[in-house]
Amino acid sequence: MDTRPIGIFDSGVGGLTVLSEIEKVLPEESYIYIGDTKRFPYGSKSREAIIELAKRNINYLIKRNVKMIIIACGTATSQALEEVKKIYKIPIIGIIQPTILNQIQEKKENIGIIATRGTIHSHAWKNEILKKNPNVRVIEKETPLLASMAEEGWIDNIVAKEAIREYMMELKNKNLDKLILGCTHYPMFEKLIKEELSEEVSIINTGKEIAKYLQNYLKENNMMSNIKGKEEINLTDIECNFLEVAEIFLQRKVKIKQIEI
Amino acid sequence: MDTRPIGIFDSGVGGLTVLSEIEKVLPEESYIYIGDTKRFPYGSKSREAIIELAKRNINYLIKRNVKMIIIACGTATSQALEEVKKIYKIPIIGIIQPTILNQIQEKKENIGIIATRGTIHSHAWKNEILKKNPNVRVIEKETPLLASMAEEGWIDNIVAKEAIREYMMELKNKNLDKLILGCTHYPMFEKLIKEELSEEVSIINTGKEIAKYLQNYLKENNMMSNIKGKEEINLTDIECNFLEVAEIFLQRKVKIKQIEI
Repeated sequence: MDTRPIGIFDSGVGGLTVLSEIEKVLPEESYIYIGDTKRFPYGSKSREAIIELAKRNINYLIKRNVKMIIIACGTATSQALEEVKKIYKIPIIGIIQPTILNQIQEKKENIGIIATRGTIHSHAWKNEILKKNPNVRVIEKETPLLASMAEEGWIDNIVAKEAIREYMMELKNKNLDKLILGCTHYPMFEKLIKEELSEEVSIINTGKEIAKYLQNYLKENNMMSNIKGKEEINLTDIECNFLEVAEIFLQRKVKIKQIEI
Repeated sequence: MDTRPIGIFDSGVGGLTVLSEIEKVLPEESYIYIGDTKRFPYGSKSREAIIELAKRNINYLIKRNVKMIIIACGTATSQALEEVKKIYKIPIIGIIQPTILNQIQEKKENIGIIATRGTIHSHAWKNEILKKNPNVRVIEKETPLLASMAEEGWIDNIVAKEAIREYMMELKNKNLDKLILGCTHYPMFEKLIKEELSEEVSIINTGKEIAKYLQNYLKENNMMSNIKGKEEINLTDIECNFLEVAEIFLQRKVKIKQIEI
């Protein structure tokens, strides 16, 4: 038993989609969330810059005595996870491994990935998928504007619709079995993405996969909490509409604190 | 006479629209440009963060022995110009003052401004315009996604068109005489913006206004150069498509160097 909180970080409010899925499955845990809105978006930064920022988030969370850390950010997972795992002893989980563990079976499948430019160019998803099953055909597609759009709250207007249509154009005829949303902002566009693709394509929300993985992990390692959970949502820069966007993402009222990391 | 280079900085490649206009008017000057792509976009950062970043850009340029500095970024001008002018002795010019000097006359006019969220919320444009002519009606409109769109090279596709249409909706019926493009990325959207507004609205490109202002300033202060100018374009993060986007912005081939600031 371990009542310490779980630390979660993202470049902005996108990781709240992960927090939301985890809280559904593990309501007795406590959470400390960081959205590094001061430096959003990570998607257009260099690998070195992202590793440096991941370390700042992790150092802050370790000082706050968390029992483990979730990188709820596709870009930081693909660019920094391997590096920070070498440096820190605390368990750190990204969004890639849990998703692959649950979703990549032994079948021959066509798997699409959409993510920021940095994530796609790292081939982190593709490499991990092929390690588990070399017979999968992986189709990678960078969709660099979607995270900024979500962060601005444009998730259901005509611009979001046209951006999704533009990005999905190439994926439509690839005969996909699954499409992985490789950035934690993208679940906000799930409805629009579904409208563009054939009904047979399963859309994979990494937040749901992390939640399943985390539940097993805590059980197996006897690290579950049994007290009523608390939640703390911190942003590194509080702009007027971050609260509003956070509430759209979580579909409920939230309290936000500004922190320095 | 002063053959030292002129320093110019922006959060990304948007300031190249300013460099391009200045070079047309002052081809005998030398230029050192910084696009702080590692930290793009400034538009969603706090005032404090932007002042800190402006100082880093300025310190770098001063070390490079420039004779003056142009802040070719609407956000950095509105958030940091007053602050940095108090700290540094070197002449520093933003995009607001030159534009107002040339464009705000004694007439009663309706002037629209589009800019990033930070710039609009600072009311920097509105305050300066009303100082010069209190009878002008100023209509402010934040257009937060446009800089990211331009930085991705989406300047003429359907998504850009729909985003511009969405943003111009509110401005259409305001009977504008002029619309100031309050962010140096926006000249790339001039054609699309014109299509949405009545023909009588003049679109004000701040790069052109700075070029006129700078020419006068250098003449009056006997600071012009009379040797063949050189140009150096530096970015703090070189992602695969920054070169491509820089070339779209400048409409010619360019050489780019990566620097740390």
